[in-house]
Amino acid sequence: MIKKYVFGTPFETEAIVKEMDTEQGNLTFGKVSAESGFTFSYLMSKDDIVYGLGEANRGINKRNYCYISNCTDEPNHLEDKKSLYAAHNFIVISGRENFGLFFDYPAKITFDIGYTKEELLEVSCESADLYLYVITGENAYDIVKQFRKIIGRSYIPPKFAFGFGQSRWGYKTKEDYRKVLEGYRKNHIPMDMIYMDIDYMQDFKDFTLNEENFKDFPEFVHEMKEEGIRLVPIIDAGVKVEEGYSVYEEGVEKGYFCKREDGSDFIAAVWPGDTHFPDVLNADARKWFGDHYRFLIDQGIEGFWNDMNEPAIFYSREGMEELKTLIKKYVEEDLETLPVWELEKHVLGIASHPEDYARFYHNVDGRKIRHDKVHNLFGCNMTRAAGEAFERIAPDKRFLMFSRSSYIGMHRYGGIWTGDNKSWWSHILLNLKMMPSLNMCGFLYAGADLGGFGADSTRDLVLRWMALGVFTPLMRNHSAEGTREQEAYQFGDTEDFRGIVETRYRLLPYLYSEYMKAALNDDMYFRPLAFVYPEDSFAKEVEDQMMLGDEIMIAPVYTQNAKGRYVYLPEDMLFVKFTKDGAYTEESLKQGHHYVEIAINEVPLFIRKGRCIPLVKAAKCAEELDTTHMDVIGFADAEYTLYEDDGMHKDYENPKNYRVLKCR
Amino acid sequence: MIKKYVFGTPFETEAIVKEMDTEQGNLTFGKVSAESGFTFSYLMSKDDIVYGLGEANRGINKRNYCYISNCTDEPNHLEDKKSLYAAHNFIVISGRENFGLFFDYPAKITFDIGYTKEELLEVSCESADLYLYVITGENAYDIVKQFRKIIGRSYIPPKFAFGFGQSRWGYKTKEDYRKVLEGYRKNHIPMDMIYMDIDYMQDFKDFTLNEENFKDFPEFVHEMKEEGIRLVPIIDAGVKVEEGYSVYEEGVEKGYFCKREDGSDFIAAVWPGDTHFPDVLNADARKWFGDHYRFLIDQGIEGFWNDMNEPAIFYSREGMEELKTLIKKYVEEDLETLPVWELEKHVLGIASHPEDYARFYHNVDGRKIRHDKVHNLFGCNMTRAAGEAFERIAPDKRFLMFSRSSYIGMHRYGGIWTGDNKSWWSHILLNLKMMPSLNMCGFLYAGADLGGFGADSTRDLVLRWMALGVFTPLMRNHSAEGTREQEAYQFGDTEDFRGIVETRYRLLPYLYSEYMKAALNDDMYFRPLAFVYPEDSFAKEVEDQMMLGDEIMIAPVYTQNAKGRYVYLPEDMLFVKFTKDGAYTEESLKQGHHYVEIAINEVPLFIRKGRCIPLVKAAKCAEELDTTHMDVIGFADAEYTLYEDDGMHKDYENPKNYRVLKCR
Repeated sequence: MIKKYVFGTPFETEAIVKEMDTEQGNLTFGKVSAESGFTFSYLMSKDDIVYGLGEANRGINKRNYCYISNCTDEPNHLEDKKSLYAAHNFIVISGRENFGLFFDYPAKITFDIGYTKEELLEVSCESADLYLYVITGENAYDIVKQFRKIIGRSYIPPKFAFGFGQSRWGYKTKEDYRKVLEGYRKNHIPMDMIYMDIDYMQDFKDFTLNEENFKDFPEFVHEMKEEGIRLVPIIDAGVKVEEGYSVYEEGVEKGYFCKREDGSDFIAAVWPGDTHFPDVLNADARKWFGDHYRFLIDQGIEGFWNDMNEPAIFYSREGMEELKTLIKKYVEEDLETLPVWELEKHVLGIASHPEDYARFYHNVDGRKIRHDKVHNLFGCNMTRAAGEAFERIAPDKRFLMFSRSSYIGMHRYGGIWTGDNKSWWSHILLNLKMMPSLNMCGFLYAGADLGGFGADSTRDLVLRWMALGVFTPLMRNHSAEGTREQEAYQFGDTEDFRGIVETRYRLLPYLYSEYMKAALNDDMYFRPLAFVYPEDSFAKEVEDQMMLGDEIMIAPVYTQNAKGRYVYLPEDMLFVKFTKDGAYTEESLKQGHHYVEIAINEVPLFIRKGRCIPLVKAAKCAEELDTTHMDVIGFADAEYTLYEDDGMHKDYENPKNYRVLKCR
Repeated sequence: MIKKYVFGTPFETEAIVKEMDTEQGNLTFGKVSAESGFTFSYLMSKDDIVYGLGEANRGINKRNYCYISNCTDEPNHLEDKKSLYAAHNFIVISGRENFGLFFDYPAKITFDIGYTKEELLEVSCESADLYLYVITGENAYDIVKQFRKIIGRSYIPPKFAFGFGQSRWGYKTKEDYRKVLEGYRKNHIPMDMIYMDIDYMQDFKDFTLNEENFKDFPEFVHEMKEEGIRLVPIIDAGVKVEEGYSVYEEGVEKGYFCKREDGSDFIAAVWPGDTHFPDVLNADARKWFGDHYRFLIDQGIEGFWNDMNEPAIFYSREGMEELKTLIKKYVEEDLETLPVWELEKHVLGIASHPEDYARFYHNVDGRKIRHDKVHNLFGCNMTRAAGEAFERIAPDKRFLMFSRSSYIGMHRYGGIWTGDNKSWWSHILLNLKMMPSLNMCGFLYAGADLGGFGADSTRDLVLRWMALGVFTPLMRNHSAEGTREQEAYQFGDTEDFRGIVETRYRLLPYLYSEYMKAALNDDMYFRPLAFVYPEDSFAKEVEDQMMLGDEIMIAPVYTQNAKGRYVYLPEDMLFVKFTKDGAYTEESLKQGHHYVEIAINEVPLFIRKGRCIPLVKAAKCAEELDTTHMDVIGFADAEYTLYEDDGMHKDYENPKNYRVLKCR
């Protein structure tokens, strides 16, 4: 059961698609204080688990820390960071009482989940203008499923998006892309996508192509597609301020950019230097911005990633003036010693500065809304702009789309990647822990930068991380300019990498089928063990394994120099290890705790008792997989219902998309 | 067997105390190239383990990463940091061949242990002037023991140093210290030390006391000692430049500070502002600096910690001038937009700048040695200055002394703490992994800032970390100004903290006894499991447990919200959990893998088959422990040989220090 409460005058985020009546009276759980700002408080029991928050730091169980929904361009995902790129304000309290809470509030909101006081859950925000949805159900999973029903169907990408993709900030020319293609194809490593980071644009201008490097772009897109490769360009939030640049000029003319208090267009420096932010909260501006994706679609592009849409600000005009004033003062005062820490604080603090987010405004149905009041909706609406445009441009076609910043509601228009992580072992585990939480909030198409974006990677780290990536809907190796190159062919003994990527393709029909079932039924693709085994008291504790679909459990290795790992089986399972050269091993394991060996080039999974999964022969790209000939592995006589469609169109409800496969 | 090779003209670091002949001819293992710089290379086998490097990042097994010995004031111990505060150039290769290598070289040296190429070990440095010691033995442990014999006996602290200590950067007045004392004594939590961070000094001047806050200091020291508390002041490396400050004036007059090329005293800004570095590599200056510790000893102080001795440099005069020039240029050019990233790089890079370390010189026996050539010896010799002074001041007495920066050789004069870690769960595990590696290099008295120095801690983190700290010779809770207060009485339900600290005191006779045996026999206090069970192939893989002395194994919980952990037992053991109120539970566990439950307020340990350990009743401080009445727990009929002495003097060889205890 879901109750909707209203406090003050909420902003309509459109996160919830179901019409609901508003409840009167007190909350069933916890207490609300709306006197100065808004605070929800609840006394947790010692063993209560708190799930949710989507792309947030720390564990699947969010207890004993504090999280702040405040979309931030944060490249250092350290243990003590409270805000990352997303704002997913849904939590589930599971234990003595079971209930879910969705705080539909688009500005900064704090979830103190036993940080200040161990037993106290306190959710607070500055303004008491919000919708609060309270969901009761028999257990956490049931509550999540109810929530998923009211936020609308999750985004469904085309099937090629379940292939493997290679990316790196630093590819500049067609030759760079051809080299990547060659690296993969020569080594017989499957691949479906190469991502185009910011350098493909002319001077980082959205909806342009570098004039020198990407002449005859449609031919190049075609050349790649002939090899089974989709090029997936990035789109940034900020539109470069440049006379003669049509997107800029149009936006200015139509008044579609975010404005300062005085009505002038707000200037934020990002990659291109000075930019304006398209006012994606304004329906007309959103339509206008979305229609620009056509520039690349018309040249054969079928997928995009939306970046810098927290929106990231390197500095504002105002911030730059303050820094210049400070420096000038230092020079004028002729200080013998500069106050280095003050300067450092100022220089580091100039990016994503809170004051800048209070310096510009949106025009929402004629109302002027200060950005910081709706900050967490920007990335969501930028991606919505694209999603709505795709519907207009090619209503029957699916496009690949994922975003860095997001709010619940955006899950209907695209997936996400978890932003600029690092080549750290701890980030493999963080990747895993985010996945089920994201699924709770509707984000099914998701993944992390495999191998790590920042910092130098190592061969073993890339292999282990890609072995987890085999299972995430978005499987992409991505890294930053200046770091060690980490494409699968960079480290020698390339057959180890081939084996792992091939495993992705061998499992692709299953992964795709489970993804589609999850999306079509408002269900989860990744679940915490406790959601599947609610009566199993140990399952609740497990933070480094997860269930994938209805058939399998995964448990990646995430520690350096380990030859295996401990794993907990809530029931008897078949332990399968995929090894290189298309082989695999099987071992029956009993319910309980096990230590299992997993070599650096192996991909482990566990098939649940009585279940089976289809396996196909790997191919160079998703389209070439021959699903008419599939092996089925698992428990004898088990059956699996496969969902399969053409992967491009939207014929989801066709009963012919389902067929039953039987284990040998 | 140990072979000593000499390349070029090495600097005499005095790390090795044993006189040895120099070998002629080729190395038994690996290859040396001394053509341009120095490179040692060796092809590792797939399963070789590389141990060592003391206080270094990552695992007990150092494979698959790169480490640079280059003592650095590095407060961010991220996974990709290659240099921390120490330089411990000893490694052991264990597997197909077994040998140890000590690169006695006091400048920057790189250990690429399969980072660039998985099988390649490459140790390289700029100048081919070093001693290389090659040690062969039957296994890694044997090699370590041989190495320990040639580097001299490890530092032995007084017994009170095995008590618990509280610290925080931010205690300023006597009242602050009395409040800490009261917080512990009122809650009946044992404590032996309160540490005095930089604010006790007058304007951060070494060997001074804040004139306002620490009038009548000897009386205050006495007041604390009456309560069983030793005050332990910090000493920083840099001596403030200030007319009328006697330490400064003496140093200038005698020429005991490090000098620039032109002979002027080098100026580095640290906490006090401009400072000079005492030339601790010069024997006369070292004696002079060491003698100053008498200022505090004469007032009743019996222990110190040496900080900032990498030496840390916030900025040099030269660096500041460069920054000022840059800023002036920006202002003069009247730039519309400052190059923020250039400025950021410059501002962040001004501290610990490599060029600054090439701007000053030491006077070693009349030779002028540029600092960067001997950089890694500074902290070592600052602590040696103190250690040698203690010998002169009170030859029969033991002082507490530990340092931030160190080089092998310093282990004879003091312990170390592992520097400015963070309140991160991952740093509990890093703490654990550093300990056996430090022991290999002679550093027995060691520990990390429990609860984490930087970032805000949480109750559960402090409890879990202190439960590991129970076993580290240095057990200290320390945190940074501005972070959340984390003394044991700050979080409520203080009996949980009391139980953990009391466990330390209950075990103190055992921990002290094992420490003393390790020190007196040039042995290890903490060992990797593989050192004790060399035939056990799984023991080699274990990176989150360690052996402590001859009787026990420890396995702390280091993940948030976990109710227990997996543990591997190389033999049958007795699993003991210490709970609050002086109780404990016992459970016999068989050799093999187990999941064990460990509550947030419990301290687990495992007694080896056939062994036993003494337990004493907790007391408010180490001196008050009644060791005439001890319980002995463990396997029936087992015996334990306890080492006990007065804990203050140096009567180590007295046979009366040993007595045999029998398990009930």
